[in-house]
Amino acid sequence: MAEKYIYNLKEGKGDQKLLLGGKGANLCQMVQSGLPVPPGFILTTEVCRKYMQDPTIMDKVWEGIKFSVQTLEKETGKGFNDKSNPLLVSVRSGAPISMPGMMETILNLGLNDETVEGLASVSANRRFAFDSYRRFIQMFSSVVDEVDADLFEKALTELKERLNVSFDYEVPADELEKLVAEYKKIYKTATGHDFPTDPWEQLRKAIEAVFKSWNIPRAVTYRRINKIADDLGTAVNVISMVYGNLGDDCGTGVCFTRDPSTGENKLYGEFLINAQGEDVVAGIRTPMPISQLEGAMPKIYKELCELTEQLEKSYREMQDIEFTIERGKLFLLQTRSGKRTAASAVKIAMDMVEEGLIDTKTAVSRVSPEQVEQLLHRQVDKDAPHEVLAVGLPASPGAGVGVLVFSADEAEEWAQEGKSVILARPETCPDDIHGLFAAAGVITSRGGMTSHAAVVARGMGKPAVCGCEEMVIDLEAETLTSRGKTYKKGDFVTVDGSLGRILVGQVPLIEATFSEDFKTLLSWADELARQEVWANADTPEDAARALDFGAKGIGLCRTEHMFMATDRLPIVQQLIVADDLKERLVALDKLKVIQQQDFLGIFKAMKGYPVIIRLLDPPLHEFMPKEPAILEELEGLKKAGKDDSKEAEDLRRKLAKVRQLHESNPMLGFRGCRLGMVYPEIYEMQINAILEAVADLTKENVKVSPEIMIPLVGTKEEMRFFREMADRLAQEVMERTGTKFHYLVGTMIELPRAAMVADQLAEHAQFFSFGTNDLTQTVFGYSRDDAEGKFLFQYIDKGVFKENPFSELDRDGVGGLMKIAVERGRKTTPELSVGICGEHGGNPSSIAFCCSIDMNYVSCSPFRVPVARLAAAHAALGLLK
Amino acid sequence: MAEKYIYNLKEGKGDQKLLLGGKGANLCQMVQSGLPVPPGFILTTEVCRKYMQDPTIMDKVWEGIKFSVQTLEKETGKGFNDKSNPLLVSVRSGAPISMPGMMETILNLGLNDETVEGLASVSANRRFAFDSYRRFIQMFSSVVDEVDADLFEKALTELKERLNVSFDYEVPADELEKLVAEYKKIYKTATGHDFPTDPWEQLRKAIEAVFKSWNIPRAVTYRRINKIADDLGTAVNVISMVYGNLGDDCGTGVCFTRDPSTGENKLYGEFLINAQGEDVVAGIRTPMPISQLEGAMPKIYKELCELTEQLEKSYREMQDIEFTIERGKLFLLQTRSGKRTAASAVKIAMDMVEEGLIDTKTAVSRVSPEQVEQLLHRQVDKDAPHEVLAVGLPASPGAGVGVLVFSADEAEEWAQEGKSVILARPETCPDDIHGLFAAAGVITSRGGMTSHAAVVARGMGKPAVCGCEEMVIDLEAETLTSRGKTYKKGDFVTVDGSLGRILVGQVPLIEATFSEDFKTLLSWADELARQEVWANADTPEDAARALDFGAKGIGLCRTEHMFMATDRLPIVQQLIVADDLKERLVALDKLKVIQQQDFLGIFKAMKGYPVIIRLLDPPLHEFMPKEPAILEELEGLKKAGKDDSKEAEDLRRKLAKVRQLHESNPMLGFRGCRLGMVYPEIYEMQINAILEAVADLTKENVKVSPEIMIPLVGTKEEMRFFREMADRLAQEVMERTGTKFHYLVGTMIELPRAAMVADQLAEHAQFFSFGTNDLTQTVFGYSRDDAEGKFLFQYIDKGVFKENPFSELDRDGVGGLMKIAVERGRKTTPELSVGICGEHGGNPSSIAFCCSIDMNYVSCSPFRVPVARLAAAHAALGLLK
Repeated sequence: MAEKYIYNLKEGKGDQKLLLGGKGANLCQMVQSGLPVPPGFILTTEVCRKYMQDPTIMDKVWEGIKFSVQTLEKETGKGFNDKSNPLLVSVRSGAPISMPGMMETILNLGLNDETVEGLASVSANRRFAFDSYRRFIQMFSSVVDEVDADLFEKALTELKERLNVSFDYEVPADELEKLVAEYKKIYKTATGHDFPTDPWEQLRKAIEAVFKSWNIPRAVTYRRINKIADDLGTAVNVISMVYGNLGDDCGTGVCFTRDPSTGENKLYGEFLINAQGEDVVAGIRTPMPISQLEGAMPKIYKELCELTEQLEKSYREMQDIEFTIERGKLFLLQTRSGKRTAASAVKIAMDMVEEGLIDTKTAVSRVSPEQVEQLLHRQVDKDAPHEVLAVGLPASPGAGVGVLVFSADEAEEWAQEGKSVILARPETCPDDIHGLFAAAGVITSRGGMTSHAAVVARGMGKPAVCGCEEMVIDLEAETLTSRGKTYKKGDFVTVDGSLGRILVGQVPLIEATFSEDFKTLLSWADELARQEVWANADTPEDAARALDFGAKGIGLCRTEHMFMATDRLPIVQQLIVADDLKERLVALDKLKVIQQQDFLGIFKAMKGYPVIIRLLDPPLHEFMPKEPAILEELEGLKKAGKDDSKEAEDLRRKLAKVRQLHESNPMLGFRGCRLGMVYPEIYEMQINAILEAVADLTKENVKVSPEIMIPLVGTKEEMRFFREMADRLAQEVMERTGTKFHYLVGTMIELPRAAMVADQLAEHAQFFSFGTNDLTQTVFGYSRDDAEGKFLFQYIDKGVFKENPFSELDRDGVGGLMKIAVERGRKTTPELSVGICGEHGGNPSSIAFCCSIDMNYVSCSPFRVPVARLAAAHAALGLLK
Repeated sequence: MAEKYIYNLKEGKGDQKLLLGGKGANLCQMVQSGLPVPPGFILTTEVCRKYMQDPTIMDKVWEGIKFSVQTLEKETGKGFNDKSNPLLVSVRSGAPISMPGMMETILNLGLNDETVEGLASVSANRRFAFDSYRRFIQMFSSVVDEVDADLFEKALTELKERLNVSFDYEVPADELEKLVAEYKKIYKTATGHDFPTDPWEQLRKAIEAVFKSWNIPRAVTYRRINKIADDLGTAVNVISMVYGNLGDDCGTGVCFTRDPSTGENKLYGEFLINAQGEDVVAGIRTPMPISQLEGAMPKIYKELCELTEQLEKSYREMQDIEFTIERGKLFLLQTRSGKRTAASAVKIAMDMVEEGLIDTKTAVSRVSPEQVEQLLHRQVDKDAPHEVLAVGLPASPGAGVGVLVFSADEAEEWAQEGKSVILARPETCPDDIHGLFAAAGVITSRGGMTSHAAVVARGMGKPAVCGCEEMVIDLEAETLTSRGKTYKKGDFVTVDGSLGRILVGQVPLIEATFSEDFKTLLSWADELARQEVWANADTPEDAARALDFGAKGIGLCRTEHMFMATDRLPIVQQLIVADDLKERLVALDKLKVIQQQDFLGIFKAMKGYPVIIRLLDPPLHEFMPKEPAILEELEGLKKAGKDDSKEAEDLRRKLAKVRQLHESNPMLGFRGCRLGMVYPEIYEMQINAILEAVADLTKENVKVSPEIMIPLVGTKEEMRFFREMADRLAQEVMERTGTKFHYLVGTMIELPRAAMVADQLAEHAQFFSFGTNDLTQTVFGYSRDDAEGKFLFQYIDKGVFKENPFSELDRDGVGGLMKIAVERGRKTTPELSVGICGEHGGNPSSIAFCCSIDMNYVSCSPFRVPVARLAAAHAALGLLK
């Protein structure tokens, strides 16, 4: 055999994950490091790949397997199919990339009616031997022959009922022996043949079953969702069994090298004397804290401390270790990087830098952008007592406490009365937006991580638990039933969106805090990142918050929000209904004074960092009342006999204007710089307000970096028109105020055409900012509101999309055009500054794409700035796909 | 002087148009061919280009000019500034590309108070001499010093009033002499200096003025509109004057080598004895037909016939020739390709092929696609007597007769009563569409060739005259006033859209006819073209018409029009309001039977040519009544006490559905294949109807080439889904019917994303068809209806666009994406068939673009097929930009 298909644990290397699987490579590394690991061997992923093509590969490797088992016999001093001292093995899958929940496991392989007696005799524990045997049969049947595990569980349950006992361990040995016989019958009925008694046959079938498990639908789906290649294949680990339940010099446990919850640097975990790994999990006996092992088995404890420390140093990472003590001998069964909370992740990373174990770059890589999201939200106080109401999907992180309501309208009403409410719905739709907006948290019984409720809640930064199927919502009765209890409208519940749990009553929450450690970590991240992180902010308050979160500029300051304020809206409406330029200029003069103050505030807050101000963007009708509202008011005046009043006259003017402004597709209509082309005086007012604010601050020696952004540009002529307008006005302002200042004029790239003619736009635009919300709409031809209400989630269900393209940037279409835009823009102006200000600017995967096309910065909502800073670093390190 | 800046007519070559200008090169060629042309010389365009950079170039060429004038003196036997026999010259501009109306001309240069006496004496006609002098002063003043020509006209008019005469020629010599003195005063007042008396100074100033005229705003605008390069420059032609008014052995005339109206091969034109060229134009004396020259001057006539025939043979093109006879000697002053009607263009091209003068390729190039449009419309009978009411822009070709109406509503009402109406508006807007649709023609007093009325009328194939500013429309009085007369509602008028004229009353029209010649010409065009021409047709009648016009397939058969028919709409609505799949299937079964018949009809009509059928595209709400209409009906039922009726129940269901289907941007909403993804049963029904029709015809041995087109595809998954659906259903139909047939499944490319992922789509799509209407909307982010109503025409006015991008394909944006789509699609499938079925498919410039990206076919409305066939040939010949 030219290729090496089988590796003894002594032969494999820790870096051969692709060949040996993650688990196998780790075991090999442990063995290489002199750690006590039960002897074993690994069939490589190469065998799996060949098996998929042609199962007869098994014939070729069979001799090698036999040889490897013989080696195991020598290493353990036991014999495979040896009736007196049988060698038993575990057979497990192990892919190159961790696929939690996809692991196939068969323990105790090698047992049959004869070897079981040997095991009973060696262990001096007949009950243990037959319990191991029945577990083996169940696992083998399920993994190899897909026999429904429930059939076995049912037989066991009936047995316990007959014996009138509650726990498995109360079933005596002779009854287990009978149960084994019954299990074999179940097997035969289900498969049509006898349970294989030959350990060699057992082994071969088990190995083949693991190979086949690579392509079961559940595994394929998992890989698709997690973007794992289908052709990796899985290795098979065949490891000799060790037992922690052969007496009081035995035991088993799990430990972490540091506290996974707080990050504290001390051995953390639990163990049981005379027990199997399963007993720790089953919760029958309460495990003891690992510290007590010192008293119980001082030598073992010392060895464990030394070994785990060695492991951590070797991996330079916090380890999660399974161990078993068999007759006074410590075996490490598995080690892997330990899962940890966000806070713990940060502390461990910082401590390890301090300890000299890792460098700052590695520290940054140890905290994921997703974990940072946890840090940004209030969380349920994990030390507070609580009762779980139901468990669902952790659809949107954070926590909220409030009273149950079952309709969006009621959520809004109660919230207006000052109540904190949790909106409970089977699922939500766009009509519920106002309710989602009013609620402190959302729970749904249907829908996944990309359901409407989940997407909207994440967008709003509100906690949500979705697809909580154990909970039944009765909208008519306005009740929620789960785990046998019914809750009604007004009952308090707590939503734990980070863990996907709904808790009964009001559980105390703890506020999000930014530790100094975390700030330091983010500063390291900034050094690694190739993109700056800016924020979208429309007010001085938002700007200050953004700065506090580490933003290096304002990527999008929307001026229309300033227009919407109640003291300004009447002036804006006056502007819109104006019949001629003269009348418009009267309204614009008033607005200019106000806008100038807005800009002064934001410029001051940003302390000299760049501020990109986008000129008026939405269609004018958004500033007007709706037609029915005007008609109703008019009707009211008519009834009051005031049909001839000035008020009625004004309303009729408004009505005419509203009708004139009506559009069939406002998204594609008279908005953005099209307004500025038809009514140049509006943009002139805005530019003057910006530049006069700049001039004021320049006089006061306050540093300002204003950038004027023209929205919805699609042609070179538009860009030229507004660049010339801005330059002309700037000249005038400088002359008028006797100041000199720097400013930039640039454009949003939010239309496919803008991307295509980016080289032409760059002749006049000094910077580009991708408006990926609109760009996604035009590239796909989706109106976001319509699409999400009508078909988008069906598309995700049907697999047309893996992610909602409004959440995660579509790389082929939208991204492809962005790439073209950057290339063409920089062909004209090599140093052109390019950023993104759409919602995607806060999404890690999208940030990775922005990094790949060499953007200068990403801009997102202030509260996502820390996520984006870390994501930008991860992108630069190649950690984000 | 290293470079040659001046060419005597004897030196230049006919192919040196870039250097000598079109006019100059032609004169040289005539001289080379031995034709009698007055002696002259040319300053090259190179001098003009240098002059633009640095006017001192004139110093360098001045010696050459003096030398050239001396040569002229030798050639003519006259002397420049010679008081007894003065040499007079004309100075004219002449660009490499004809710029009608941009020509600067100064005649009789060289006259002053002394040489005028010499001219009087040599001509023995004092009146003529002073009339020439005053004309010279006026032209020189206007061209060189921009003195308002009206000042001179006013002086002449006052003189005629004082003398109580009507015509210029009635003013005697002595009065003209006084007028010359007055003209000089006018000049001095306007310019502040004396009129130059030195002929050399006159000449230098005239030449410089011609160079400067290249950059006057009018010329720059003309070049921009006609896409002529700014750096061509103009040549200056200095030609010795000859006079046709020195006696009865003199004369002047214009002739065409063939009849420009019919194409008949005979000398056509008119002349005057003892007259100047201007007299022919001025209309004072009625010119005589050229045939009468034979009687008047037999020798000259014979010479003219020979020379013009020689010219035509030399140019292999019908010539438009100006000539003058000076004292029995014939001079040809100019020759150029003659303008001609469409019918004439076809006949001349065909005759010249017959005569062996040109090949078929040249024949095809001689008829422009725009001319073909003329042939496709009814025209005013040019032989019928008529009175012009007003003249405007020829906005949409063809002719229509009807009674005047002044509102769109009235147009519709009167048309429904069976009247033929002409809609007259100051301008039109989208609200007037129903009126435009109902009218036999449209006239507007405002707006240009791309105004709403013009664009819509061309789209509808209706005659329109726009921007007819001499006509005043009073909407309140419902009258139209022009040339002193007022016309009222109900008065008959005739619209001549081809020539941009409105005529009084009912003028006879002649039907469009396709001569056999024209059919032959188109068949030659087809051989030259690299694209087939297909047609968009939804009915068997349209399909038959398309075939008749030479279409080689149906590029777009829209199935929704079949849904709209009144007998089907109720079933479609039943489908839409259905609560579940079962109910939908009931409606779909009924529709299938009908659709199958539709397809049978079209397939039969197309006789085996390919037929591309697009599956359902518009949003479902387009098939439903509008909400107010339902509410009104419901109100009616309520009043009639039928609130509980089945009818009311149905209406309420419809209402609920209509509200549910409402979208904020339907253009970007739930339509196209998105319907087919959510309701696969609808597309399944359509595909089955198509394929069962195919099976039926296959059984009857009728040849069919069905192609199923999926609309609005944006992702690979969509394309795969429908391709698999079609393949599965085809398999079933073949098995069910026991037939075998060929079919294709492809997609529209009408979303930017589709273009970007064309390589992925081509994995499943067997053909692409560009839907450039929607693609233009999404690439620009324009909703066509909204844009054309709100800002698009302002954009064209402001120069953002040269053409409406919905009429002429935008090459940089939309075109750029099309190029990407073709390249990527053919990367996957090199032989991929690609076509266009948007409105641009019938636009010559857009067809040229389609040719440049190697499309397989263009598809347009049936009546535009001949235009497209010719355009495709012109595109292949590189004649279309």
